[in-house]
Amino acid sequence: MSKKISIAIDAMGGDNAPDKTIAGIKIFLDKNKSKNDFILNIFGQQDILDQKIKKHNLNSNLINIINSNTVVSDEETPITAVKNSKNTSMWNCIKHQLDGKSDISISAGNTGVLLVISRMILKMMNEVSKPALAGLWPNQNGVNVVLDLGANIECNDDNLVDFAELGSALFKSLFPKEKPKVSLLNIGSEEIKGTDILKSASKKLKDLSSDDNFIYNGYIERNHIMSGDSNVIVTDGFTGNIALKTAEGTAKFITNNLKKTLTENIFTKLSLIFSYFSIKKFRDKLDPRKYNGAIFLGLNGPVVKSHGGIDSIGFYHSIDLCYKIVKGDLMAQIKKNLEHSKSVKN
Amino acid sequence: MSKKISIAIDAMGGDNAPDKTIAGIKIFLDKNKSKNDFILNIFGQQDILDQKIKKHNLNSNLINIINSNTVVSDEETPITAVKNSKNTSMWNCIKHQLDGKSDISISAGNTGVLLVISRMILKMMNEVSKPALAGLWPNQNGVNVVLDLGANIECNDDNLVDFAELGSALFKSLFPKEKPKVSLLNIGSEEIKGTDILKSASKKLKDLSSDDNFIYNGYIERNHIMSGDSNVIVTDGFTGNIALKTAEGTAKFITNNLKKTLTENIFTKLSLIFSYFSIKKFRDKLDPRKYNGAIFLGLNGPVVKSHGGIDSIGFYHSIDLCYKIVKGDLMAQIKKNLEHSKSVKN
Repeated sequence: MSKKISIAIDAMGGDNAPDKTIAGIKIFLDKNKSKNDFILNIFGQQDILDQKIKKHNLNSNLINIINSNTVVSDEETPITAVKNSKNTSMWNCIKHQLDGKSDISISAGNTGVLLVISRMILKMMNEVSKPALAGLWPNQNGVNVVLDLGANIECNDDNLVDFAELGSALFKSLFPKEKPKVSLLNIGSEEIKGTDILKSASKKLKDLSSDDNFIYNGYIERNHIMSGDSNVIVTDGFTGNIALKTAEGTAKFITNNLKKTLTENIFTKLSLIFSYFSIKKFRDKLDPRKYNGAIFLGLNGPVVKSHGGIDSIGFYHSIDLCYKIVKGDLMAQIKKNLEHSKSVKN
Repeated sequence: MSKKISIAIDAMGGDNAPDKTIAGIKIFLDKNKSKNDFILNIFGQQDILDQKIKKHNLNSNLINIINSNTVVSDEETPITAVKNSKNTSMWNCIKHQLDGKSDISISAGNTGVLLVISRMILKMMNEVSKPALAGLWPNQNGVNVVLDLGANIECNDDNLVDFAELGSALFKSLFPKEKPKVSLLNIGSEEIKGTDILKSASKKLKDLSSDDNFIYNGYIERNHIMSGDSNVIVTDGFTGNIALKTAEGTAKFITNNLKKTLTENIFTKLSLIFSYFSIKKFRDKLDPRKYNGAIFLGLNGPVVKSHGGIDSIGFYHSIDLCYKIVKGDLMAQIKKNLEHSKSVKN
């Protein structure tokens, strides 16, 4: 690739910004010392950024500081934001991307505002019926792409077909050697097979299933959501958001109990001496920071939302995600996939 | 209580029935040797039951075998079942209950058929707008009641209010010393606060919230579904079923990985010597067999569905659940709660 991968970073969003974001950028630069195929465009208030850049010793010719006088407030609603967010660091990221100077944007700021201004500035792709928010989850063999995680409460069959194509394109850009395998979230019992929308989406996905874009595996089986049989999990935004919440809640419950168990007495503490490295590997695999970053798909350019409460390591992982998405040429994959799904749409 | 707790058990449903069911009954009898306040009415084909009763050495004056010549097939659909299931062991359980000879029924057989014939025979309570399937999940402080798990794909605000009342009544009958605390499952992001149905249900639940029946905690917070802040989780059947699937999938994923971690080399195996009892306690707390049994609520009598693939210990736990439900006088709790919610309904 002769052109550099150009990432627009809103340094001012999320808890403890820009301390956390600058620290995350520092980790990314340290881990990618051997590369010079990228440029990080850092948006924020120059004077504050200068302090933090000094603090974290951020010297690199791969960064580019761009001053933005204002910042999107946490209290802003999507409605007020459109009026108030012009020339904020978040707005300027997306604008930089629209102007062709960045390939992707990332922010840990206000989710609602990011979705609204991204959509307003970048605009939805002509071929897409609705944009979607996709997340990455671990599964038994690697990683699941799950979408929509909350951008759309109600979806029709064509929206779900689009999500399958968008999610498969994302999967291919991140894991070029693997095949996307799509499943629809639906209720399990045979007697109540879900809504007409799901039945129709399932039929269309069956027709689209091929080695070229994705294999369609049907409805997800009982408790197989993280088994790795499928790696692109498609659902509407309401259900996807509840599933995310439930998965996070269950994981937190189990790991809290495990932590309590492994430190409850002198014997369990002794046992940790022997299992330390294995338990560490187990924890690393489940570390939610590795899966930080929801990807807003279906606009004329990808936008990544980092969790607001994440630390610098989590923010590093979402910058890394941006790098991989552009490297894997997500937008070309999406265009190819959407062309392919035209045939089944209403 | 002068009248005995009378439980109708379909011995012929589920995998490996009636071997598993009779073994489960045996465990229940062994664990309750000091009690004689119950009677177990066991429905099935007399000759087959006689064999298994002999095999498991089931001698008790607290059991009562009732011959049923036929059995509900796994292939039966709810539509064909109504015609074909008359005088099956499942049907005869529910009929026994209708006739006032049993207080509750339990089956590990075909879920769809059980829901349909229960509803047909026992009929829905006049005060209830829709019946619901409730499940028990562990939480940080004890147990969650979650409903609906799949009986109704679409629900309106009054259905959700009913589920809150039914779930709280179940919680009170199982845990008389604790207070039911209700939350609604809704998507998290502030900018998209869920459907109008949820908003209206939330308003009504707020009006009903009191020390007498339940405290309403609002929408569930991000990843707090098993934190114990709330213990009655209310949602429509589609969302509830997906949440159940996601929780089971996540738990399976984590425990599989943990198992692999703790046995991967000689060091981790050594560590198990020191942590054996603590890990065992951890596993016991999460053992899905302890939470076996979904409770069908809103009919003129409770019906419990055991997981079809569960073993004898799991089946024992669901018989124990039946015992506790009747002991806690669920039906009186439900009537009291439904009286109370009349004021807010459309």
